[in-house]
Amino acid sequence: MNKLGGILPSRKFSLDPETLLCYGFDASGIESAPAAVVWPENIDDIVRISEFAYGNNIPICPRGAGTGMTGGAIPPKGSLVISFERMNRILDIDSKNLTALVQPGVINGKLQREVEMMNLFYPPDPASMNFCTIGGNVAENAGGPRAVKYGVTRDYVLEIEGVLPDGRIIHTGSQTMKGVVGYDLASLLVGSEGTLCTISRIRLKLLPLPENVVTLLALFNDIHDCGTAVSRIISSNITPRALELMDDKTIMAVEKYKPTGLPAGTDAMLIIELDGHPKVISEDAGKVSEICKAFNSEVQIAESIPDRERLWEARRSVSPALYHECPAKISEDVVVPRSRIPDLLAGLKALSVNSGIDIISFGHAGDGNVHVNLMVDRNDPKNAEIVKGLIKEVFGLALRLGGTISGEHGIGITKADYIGMEIKRPALDLMMGIKKLFDHKNILNPGKIFP
Amino acid sequence: MNKLGGILPSRKFSLDPETLLCYGFDASGIESAPAAVVWPENIDDIVRISEFAYGNNIPICPRGAGTGMTGGAIPPKGSLVISFERMNRILDIDSKNLTALVQPGVINGKLQREVEMMNLFYPPDPASMNFCTIGGNVAENAGGPRAVKYGVTRDYVLEIEGVLPDGRIIHTGSQTMKGVVGYDLASLLVGSEGTLCTISRIRLKLLPLPENVVTLLALFNDIHDCGTAVSRIISSNITPRALELMDDKTIMAVEKYKPTGLPAGTDAMLIIELDGHPKVISEDAGKVSEICKAFNSEVQIAESIPDRERLWEARRSVSPALYHECPAKISEDVVVPRSRIPDLLAGLKALSVNSGIDIISFGHAGDGNVHVNLMVDRNDPKNAEIVKGLIKEVFGLALRLGGTISGEHGIGITKADYIGMEIKRPALDLMMGIKKLFDHKNILNPGKIFP
Repeated sequence: MNKLGGILPSRKFSLDPETLLCYGFDASGIESAPAAVVWPENIDDIVRISEFAYGNNIPICPRGAGTGMTGGAIPPKGSLVISFERMNRILDIDSKNLTALVQPGVINGKLQREVEMMNLFYPPDPASMNFCTIGGNVAENAGGPRAVKYGVTRDYVLEIEGVLPDGRIIHTGSQTMKGVVGYDLASLLVGSEGTLCTISRIRLKLLPLPENVVTLLALFNDIHDCGTAVSRIISSNITPRALELMDDKTIMAVEKYKPTGLPAGTDAMLIIELDGHPKVISEDAGKVSEICKAFNSEVQIAESIPDRERLWEARRSVSPALYHECPAKISEDVVVPRSRIPDLLAGLKALSVNSGIDIISFGHAGDGNVHVNLMVDRNDPKNAEIVKGLIKEVFGLALRLGGTISGEHGIGITKADYIGMEIKRPALDLMMGIKKLFDHKNILNPGKIFP
Repeated sequence: MNKLGGILPSRKFSLDPETLLCYGFDASGIESAPAAVVWPENIDDIVRISEFAYGNNIPICPRGAGTGMTGGAIPPKGSLVISFERMNRILDIDSKNLTALVQPGVINGKLQREVEMMNLFYPPDPASMNFCTIGGNVAENAGGPRAVKYGVTRDYVLEIEGVLPDGRIIHTGSQTMKGVVGYDLASLLVGSEGTLCTISRIRLKLLPLPENVVTLLALFNDIHDCGTAVSRIISSNITPRALELMDDKTIMAVEKYKPTGLPAGTDAMLIIELDGHPKVISEDAGKVSEICKAFNSEVQIAESIPDRERLWEARRSVSPALYHECPAKISEDVVVPRSRIPDLLAGLKALSVNSGIDIISFGHAGDGNVHVNLMVDRNDPKNAEIVKGLIKEVFGLALRLGGTISGEHGIGITKADYIGMEIKRPALDLMMGIKKLFDHKNILNPGKIFP
């Protein structure tokens, strides 16, 4: 690593142990400091760094903001972290063609604010949107509450410029709205968790900003009623822009951490948000409200920004509240077909009873994506076997219901042992073949995705 | 091929020369009969056929309805065509989860009608929708007028079950709305033109059926005004569900073929269609109409189905009218960023003047996808050099404007020589590497996409 000085000025890299510590963790709770960190300022730097790493067989780990939940940004042993703090510019917002060209280090929330000032809209809104980067979002195919109506990051990526492990530059996709020239490498790179190339520039699709937003909060005495109401809303030809669920234990944890006045005895709640033309969404809000009331729910509707924010307050407190209860809890994010949410919730309750471990569920009910929290100290070795078994049971349950083991968080390190539960041969062999094709030395973020 | 009788009953295959002739062409105008045709009735048949072909090194060519424009379904020499007439069932329409499970031979238009009866919506609407199959649509990533608002086939594919060249079954994607487990092989298969696997089953995403539709027809005295109006509509935060353009020569050809009463001297016309809530679309129709009128356009608005059909009549007659004028014309389908449409149209006019060859343009202006018709007999050997040069100039023009050489038709055989104009190394090498990974014997639809 001392040779880095031969290819980069000293301001662009560090070998200082204290600095390296700062690049050795992410939201997965795993820690492992890299051997060096570099801060490229342009694609030439990335090429130079990649050629250096390739020539010296040093693993590379591209890193956004380290907000990932499954360890995708945890540096492999002896690796060189490429961190994008200095490639954080929005290069162009093209309001005529509804696209944005960005460097990978742009913060998601910053992009959202900038385009909204131009009456445009970038929908993907992961919970970490005020910290996480577009490069990381692309690497993980990030979602968020709005995915139920607007889809995930992949749906907004038009072009990716990247650097292959050996330093060659690759251009994929097209800046146009359509393109069918050859295989869709851009879609392949989205969600590849930094294992295929280092992303250096991204062109995103934008939408017109929706005119208006209305938010509903619905409290249920019975989570089964709540799950059925979700199905009913989805099949009623209304597509909310968010349809978030919190179960009884989530509500209790939030009320303990930061009381927002939710009535005791609430078994489940939904936050439902609609956007679009004012007349349409107020009509639709009425219909959604009727559906919820038919399942014995108490409903509040908010149209002003402060009132809407108040309704979101409980939902926004979920992560800190659960962290407060159990800092080393395990978060999974399974998805099931939306009509199977009641079955998933019932199955999780049974697993909790059988294992004696609290399971707290909340998340994006509208697209069937439930964040399942196992309230147990993952770092306590005496829990290791129980936890591993329970995770397997949670995944097995989701798969039996026609679901998937990850809707947003990706596989990274923490789920790599389980990928075979969902992806069977020969698909898994083909994925590993693609990895080898892009990275025959296996130096680009090795140890991720594949067991 | 005589050994086919050993693996299939006689009703499932044919070696009859007259039958084979029927499977030897598509809409590209290229003809080449296969050595055999098989009609699988289920996935076991496809596996058996694939194993047979793999063991005997016989090329396979999966075929939908043969409506493709670039020769993707033209059988390679000595090949075995897998035709999906008998795998044409809609297996399930799940109105709770908004998905449909179909066999590859289902006709696009049939699926649309079936889901619409359940108040659901499958947006991709290629011009050939009453003949073309979903399997073919997936293989080519088919678009259509509605792509401007609703995207293309890839945006609706959730899961693909397929058979690899050696007969192994592969499952890709997930039936859920979200999923980030491993690389996105399903997106990779979409648009792969039958070169990676034989598709045996597809799960598609559906949407709620839009409540109402309104159609506008706008006539312009100047095509430059028309192109600018398109840009203005797109940047006005209105997303029409179709925004179709016809130039002066298209209009003349249509009026000659089947007069619909378009006034002489019309330099360009737009068909603009809006869908959604009745109040919203009538408001938006007013805004679109104002924009067009500001560019000296005469505008008609239609809300009833017969009136709307009347406005579409001219657009629907374009293909037969142009075919009537020049049966062996060449159709390209470049895309440019939407704001560059006026530049594309001006550039095409200059190419036409310089070459002395009529160029007629129409298409999906809303997403920048223009169907460029070179009105010249492609089968006349004395045109070969001129035509090749002109195609290259058309593609070069689109690429210089930030575009792509194909928006919907794919590469197939006819554009394979030109793919290198757009896809550079190392991306092209990686695509060819992926082909080899899936099909190391190069027996699955060889000779397509790659030069």
